[in-house]
Amino acid sequence: MSELSLQAEKLDAADELAALRTRFVLDDVVYLDGNSLGALPAHVPDRVSDVVRRQWGELRIRSWDESGWWTAPERIGDRIAPLVGAAPGRIVVGDSTSVNVFKALVAAVRMADEAGEGRSEILVDATTFPTDGYIAQSAARLTGRTLRAVTPSQVPDALSARTAAVLLNHVDYRTGRLHDLPSLTSAIHAAGALAVWDLCHSAGALPVGLDEHGVDLAVGCTYKYLNGGPGSPAYLYVREELQPRFDSPLPGWNSHTDPFGMSPDYAPAPGAPRGRVGTPDILSMLALEAALEVWDGVSVAAVRAKSLALTDFFLTCVRAYTEPGRVESVTPERHEERGSQVALRCPDAGEVMKRLIARGVVGDFRHPDVLRFGFTPLYVGFADAERAARILAEELA
Amino acid sequence: MSELSLQAEKLDAADELAALRTRFVLDDVVYLDGNSLGALPAHVPDRVSDVVRRQWGELRIRSWDESGWWTAPERIGDRIAPLVGAAPGRIVVGDSTSVNVFKALVAAVRMADEAGEGRSEILVDATTFPTDGYIAQSAARLTGRTLRAVTPSQVPDALSARTAAVLLNHVDYRTGRLHDLPSLTSAIHAAGALAVWDLCHSAGALPVGLDEHGVDLAVGCTYKYLNGGPGSPAYLYVREELQPRFDSPLPGWNSHTDPFGMSPDYAPAPGAPRGRVGTPDILSMLALEAALEVWDGVSVAAVRAKSLALTDFFLTCVRAYTEPGRVESVTPERHEERGSQVALRCPDAGEVMKRLIARGVVGDFRHPDVLRFGFTPLYVGFADAERAARILAEELA
Repeated sequence: MSELSLQAEKLDAADELAALRTRFVLDDVVYLDGNSLGALPAHVPDRVSDVVRRQWGELRIRSWDESGWWTAPERIGDRIAPLVGAAPGRIVVGDSTSVNVFKALVAAVRMADEAGEGRSEILVDATTFPTDGYIAQSAARLTGRTLRAVTPSQVPDALSARTAAVLLNHVDYRTGRLHDLPSLTSAIHAAGALAVWDLCHSAGALPVGLDEHGVDLAVGCTYKYLNGGPGSPAYLYVREELQPRFDSPLPGWNSHTDPFGMSPDYAPAPGAPRGRVGTPDILSMLALEAALEVWDGVSVAAVRAKSLALTDFFLTCVRAYTEPGRVESVTPERHEERGSQVALRCPDAGEVMKRLIARGVVGDFRHPDVLRFGFTPLYVGFADAERAARILAEELA
Repeated sequence: MSELSLQAEKLDAADELAALRTRFVLDDVVYLDGNSLGALPAHVPDRVSDVVRRQWGELRIRSWDESGWWTAPERIGDRIAPLVGAAPGRIVVGDSTSVNVFKALVAAVRMADEAGEGRSEILVDATTFPTDGYIAQSAARLTGRTLRAVTPSQVPDALSARTAAVLLNHVDYRTGRLHDLPSLTSAIHAAGALAVWDLCHSAGALPVGLDEHGVDLAVGCTYKYLNGGPGSPAYLYVREELQPRFDSPLPGWNSHTDPFGMSPDYAPAPGAPRGRVGTPDILSMLALEAALEVWDGVSVAAVRAKSLALTDFFLTCVRAYTEPGRVESVTPERHEERGSQVALRCPDAGEVMKRLIARGVVGDFRHPDVLRFGFTPLYVGFADAERAARILAEELA
């Protein structure tokens, strides 16, 4: 047994989160793609079965009240809230991330408008997962603003009295770089603009502190580190002080203050439900609700500590096992700049990932040359990291 | 046994669709709320269980390809297509009805703009289910148009060279009135405007003929007569000739022509997938796909014939059993003007519906004074209609 294998054994033995792995359905694959689709929590199938067979099949329409379907979007929002540092009543679940980016960004521009300063520009993260950029372009077009793409590090210099809102990613989907949410939010506020954060690659992997850092609006998906299932609904956070000013571009009947009054005149609900749109996708939504129970008794700080230890250890193993120069890590070394993934560049990344998957190490490939390995501290251990690095080295050799 | 009971027995015995009831999970309740939430198809629970346990739990990320998750929105669209008279490749499934109304109406206004005639007005059905009106208001605001609410019968006179698009309901959610889609669409086209139809209360209950009648854009939900489950995703239809001009206000990465190319520049996909937005809600979507199998071998014309026979018979029973003047039907007598529901007005409708539900006759109440009874020909029979009318009469007495 190699020294690193022995070290992995010790680290796993000392890992206070190790027992959480039993809360998931896993096999002998090393699953390092939880940053794309989280693993299945073991109790979710029976819960979904109950939703389908009893709530839908037997209670039918009565379940909108009796099974709590109607209030699921805000109830599940409150369940996500502590994971991202939000008080109850700030988050609503529903729709896709893209649709929520649209709601958040248009609403942010409208709030910026209220000051009457003619703020004409939206800034967007130039390195963003593409959908945010596409949707930001549409939001700019529909609100008559210009859109400018800048890297997060360029944001402080790019801010001006023209800036209405800034859309940023907390963790870069490709490199795994963690951006400085507190200081960027402060800089955006100092310029009089609104900060909209996309938490897809950070929520459930590290502390976010939405309330603490005064983030204005935020969105995120729930199928990565929150393990909600394929395409489980996304969420929208609106800072408490801004909730009465949230003016949705998608004012569907679910966001009405009296949805069953069937009034032809729109009157927005107070609080988080104002971010709702149409009838929620109950099966996907209640699977997510069940999945969030794996967080019972789990501290996000402990998850973050393990995440950093895992990615440190994986990088150590990769360096020990792989010929120097064969891959280049594009994930920052500094903990303050690292999310919960390791991204390695090599020219033949697409082919290498196929071979890794065939050997039971599942990461993913991101165009054009990135091997992406996501570390979900709830179910990935140090022996997994060592094994992945070892097999990677063999395939790179 | 009363004469009407005997008649119901004969009608049920002669009903060629009667056997379809076994495709659903039903009990001894008379379920006349399938126009709000369709009953559970019997084979759906096992299919959903497979999606959760095997596709998500075992295959995990591989299911995006291997289980056909990625292509589900257009594959399921093709499954809905014959039910609404559309050829394959015209319909995509995803998001809520409200979100699809937004896509369709903004895209319609943009298409109207291409003619360069400065069409400044959107018309919306004044009797619409409220969400369409709220969303139309938002679409008008974001595209700089005015919105005018008119009843469907007023549409021909309201059309002008200023009209960009008209948003109409095929069947009125409250009264059950069926509007004349072919002639209204023709009138809208004669005025040079685009016709956007909401099919929520018609699809699966009667023939729609989208392609045949040249409808421009259409949306609909799938949890009523299509039995897709609570909050199952909605769909968007775009006429073939208009597909290359469909300019979505929600251009999420799923609608990109090369979504995994991760380009920062948006390039829309051809065809129906251009109506996609973000990651689809797979559990809700694949439950819908399974549910649509109950339509195998079923003719929409036969469904329509039974629907009219059922609502005729129910009205006959209500008239026979209920004191004259106690309720007033707001559902048209003429078949050409009737959807698949019967709406009865009485001042105490809210209380009456509660008592009906307590006695196993499930319809719903629509503010302020409407008892609504939906007839789903796939699983409602004539004896159900007679029993519902009899118990209704007892509760009204």
